[in-house]
Amino acid sequence: MLQNKPQENALAPFFEPEGLAVIGSFKEGVFGGYVVVKSLLEAGYKGNIYPVNPGNYKEVLGLKVYPSPRDIPGKADLALLMINARHVPGVIKRCAEAHIMSIVLVADGFAERDAEGAALQDEVIRLARSLGVRIIGPNTAGIANAMNGFNPCPYDAGYYQFKKGTVSICSQTGMINPQAYAYGDLGYGISKICDFGNKCDLDECDFLEYLENDTDTEIISVYVESVKDGKRFLEVCRRVASKKPVLLLKLGTTEAGARASASHTGSLAIDDKIFDAVCRQTKVLRLDQFAEMFEMPRFFASQPLPRGNRFGMVTYTGAVGVAALDEGARHGLVRARLSNDTSRMLEDMFPGLGHVPVDIGPMIPSVKDFSSVYTKILIAVMEDENVDSLFNVVWADGKGNNTKAYVEGYEALKETARKPVVTWVYGPSINMTRDVSKRLESLGFPVFTEPERCIKALGLAYRYASGG
Amino acid sequence: MLQNKPQENALAPFFEPEGLAVIGSFKEGVFGGYVVVKSLLEAGYKGNIYPVNPGNYKEVLGLKVYPSPRDIPGKADLALLMINARHVPGVIKRCAEAHIMSIVLVADGFAERDAEGAALQDEVIRLARSLGVRIIGPNTAGIANAMNGFNPCPYDAGYYQFKKGTVSICSQTGMINPQAYAYGDLGYGISKICDFGNKCDLDECDFLEYLENDTDTEIISVYVESVKDGKRFLEVCRRVASKKPVLLLKLGTTEAGARASASHTGSLAIDDKIFDAVCRQTKVLRLDQFAEMFEMPRFFASQPLPRGNRFGMVTYTGAVGVAALDEGARHGLVRARLSNDTSRMLEDMFPGLGHVPVDIGPMIPSVKDFSSVYTKILIAVMEDENVDSLFNVVWADGKGNNTKAYVEGYEALKETARKPVVTWVYGPSINMTRDVSKRLESLGFPVFTEPERCIKALGLAYRYASGG
Repeated sequence: MLQNKPQENALAPFFEPEGLAVIGSFKEGVFGGYVVVKSLLEAGYKGNIYPVNPGNYKEVLGLKVYPSPRDIPGKADLALLMINARHVPGVIKRCAEAHIMSIVLVADGFAERDAEGAALQDEVIRLARSLGVRIIGPNTAGIANAMNGFNPCPYDAGYYQFKKGTVSICSQTGMINPQAYAYGDLGYGISKICDFGNKCDLDECDFLEYLENDTDTEIISVYVESVKDGKRFLEVCRRVASKKPVLLLKLGTTEAGARASASHTGSLAIDDKIFDAVCRQTKVLRLDQFAEMFEMPRFFASQPLPRGNRFGMVTYTGAVGVAALDEGARHGLVRARLSNDTSRMLEDMFPGLGHVPVDIGPMIPSVKDFSSVYTKILIAVMEDENVDSLFNVVWADGKGNNTKAYVEGYEALKETARKPVVTWVYGPSINMTRDVSKRLESLGFPVFTEPERCIKALGLAYRYASGG
Repeated sequence: MLQNKPQENALAPFFEPEGLAVIGSFKEGVFGGYVVVKSLLEAGYKGNIYPVNPGNYKEVLGLKVYPSPRDIPGKADLALLMINARHVPGVIKRCAEAHIMSIVLVADGFAERDAEGAALQDEVIRLARSLGVRIIGPNTAGIANAMNGFNPCPYDAGYYQFKKGTVSICSQTGMINPQAYAYGDLGYGISKICDFGNKCDLDECDFLEYLENDTDTEIISVYVESVKDGKRFLEVCRRVASKKPVLLLKLGTTEAGARASASHTGSLAIDDKIFDAVCRQTKVLRLDQFAEMFEMPRFFASQPLPRGNRFGMVTYTGAVGVAALDEGARHGLVRARLSNDTSRMLEDMFPGLGHVPVDIGPMIPSVKDFSSVYTKILIAVMEDENVDSLFNVVWADGKGNNTKAYVEGYEALKETARKPVVTWVYGPSINMTRDVSKRLESLGFPVFTEPERCIKALGLAYRYASGG
């Protein structure tokens, strides 16, 4: 199976294993081998699953438990280790003896813990190199592949299947694991997930190279606190980001944060300058806030890239228009100057409507048929030759009176739009804004939690489209 | 009634009117005089309500409609005008004749529209000065006072009563009006709301001075795009912020934003330097993002100020620890160094637990009685003499298994805590994170939407506590 692939990457057996040895405790609970097996079964993984435990377990969820990797009767090319750190070297040896050469080391208590743990981590990586074994981790919440149902999540998230999609997320933290984040509520589908953990062996560069050639992945969101080899990171980023958008969150940018990073995954944060260089010299798009890592892919997963930096805006409120222009200026975006035809048409509808931001607030009280007027305005702004993208502010009124108009407007946008649209929804209750947001998202349009984030998404997309 | 007050402020009749003339259309709908009357009745306003319209309306919601202000039979000291801009001067005259000397000018079509509107606005303000009439607006979504049920909201928000509280919000945008924002979901109560609109007369300085002496108001959140008199603004800010926290959002900081501001409320944005000076020379706390205006009061409405800049942190994830330390460094906060006793006690519970960030993630799989362990950790960090505040990261697991432990932990914090606590909740579903967030908020602890915002709240509070 594997030999058919044109380019074999060290990470391929991790995401597409023919068989998996799950080594740990199988006590029923919210963490551990039991959860991993349950998650794989529920997610629909079709490969072999071999629970391994030398103790008293005979069976888990209908699967036989084997005392040791060498007792596994069929093919297993990957092992997931959830065992005490001090047993790790011995178990790695037994895996290698059983020709399992890829290991996800969920176990913690290594370099992130103390000097003793760091020494043990050194021993593990020396051993792995001598045996030819490759490792993700230690101290990782693991990996997942939505495409083949390979979701060996060690914590019980309460759900096991992802919406399949084009976004892959990799990071130096378990925060990106399904148990941690609300993937069902992100508004886009997932291809691969990987937490590098302490990345004693495989790291963000390996992952980026794997995703570079992964046809299921079109967008990569990556979080790092440190890189081991700045030169390689720069080269890999340059190459991968030229093929697909790479969104990069780097924390530990202050001295205090960098010190914390050292104790988090036991890796020394390198000077922030390398990241600035990477983002300046490549098409990598740098993020600043934690939530952006999950929100920004929404744009790239659903919208075309803008042809230019002129954004149109339809809004109910001038203040958000001001906020948008402030944020736009930070990203090289300018407000579109509507063509004379569009401007005149809008002014005829309502005085003052003929320029960006197109503030429909004042006209609302006098509008008879909001639905048709609203669609007309959206389409007019969107189709104007001077407009490269649209920021739309939607007011989810307390009684849902306007929801039908919004849905119709966005259905019309969907028919005609070949330009990106970003949306912010506000209103007098969170239930109502969530309802409207979900309807617009189900039509394929990304909704962001804050107005500034809408504009930043456009800014990142413009930067990507215009060559970085 | 009014003459009993020691200091009469021009804004007093606006927020505590004995009677209100509602001048506009009373057609049933989602905007206009009908909504205002409905809102006042539902909100429990006990003053007189006099609908005024020269046309065919006889009655609205059981109240008689009067043809002109002079026909009003009882006391009205405030009028709300929702009429065509060109009729405004005439109606103001008739209001003054009827001794209504305070006017909320909801009507738009003034300086924010065009040159003709600007000329009309000039005429209005000259007229008002000659008559001794005071004006909020034009182009305002109005005002509200949760304390006396005076909520003359011109748009139907679907709810009419606010939770009463200590936060007052004033701004140069209707975005702060009840119809626009989800006040029921903010997690704190409201005292007063005011949208200045084009502020042809009364402005943020007048409002700040009113709130300075308003005993119901303990926290002020204010949004401005421009100020008319920089010197007065500085003086007022200095005085008011020395008495209660003033959170200031200034948009239009870029040239593009400032130009948009000019067309939004017809006021010229002044140089951003005055705002920098205000924030540097006073205790005013400057905000950067739109959402902060509504989120940051959560802290001040519920938490004591920190005694120092050393924050403790309990988390499930090291990455958020790194983000917190980065953000902390931007606000002069440092991570607390736990005392030897606390550190030893935590290390005895689990190796690696004895320092900030106290990352409980690794210990979770091996914990038997999570509830009691969790409470012990929270209290130990909180009561440590080296800790001035606590940032707590809560993982709302997908099945709600830990919710009881969190509630118990926060109940214990509530008993002992005399230091501020800020919380971020994450988890594998938004429903679950919302559920846990609401439980913690109902115990009186603010939950923020993003981890960086938790730290920024602590940073603003520290700045305020340490003298600005």
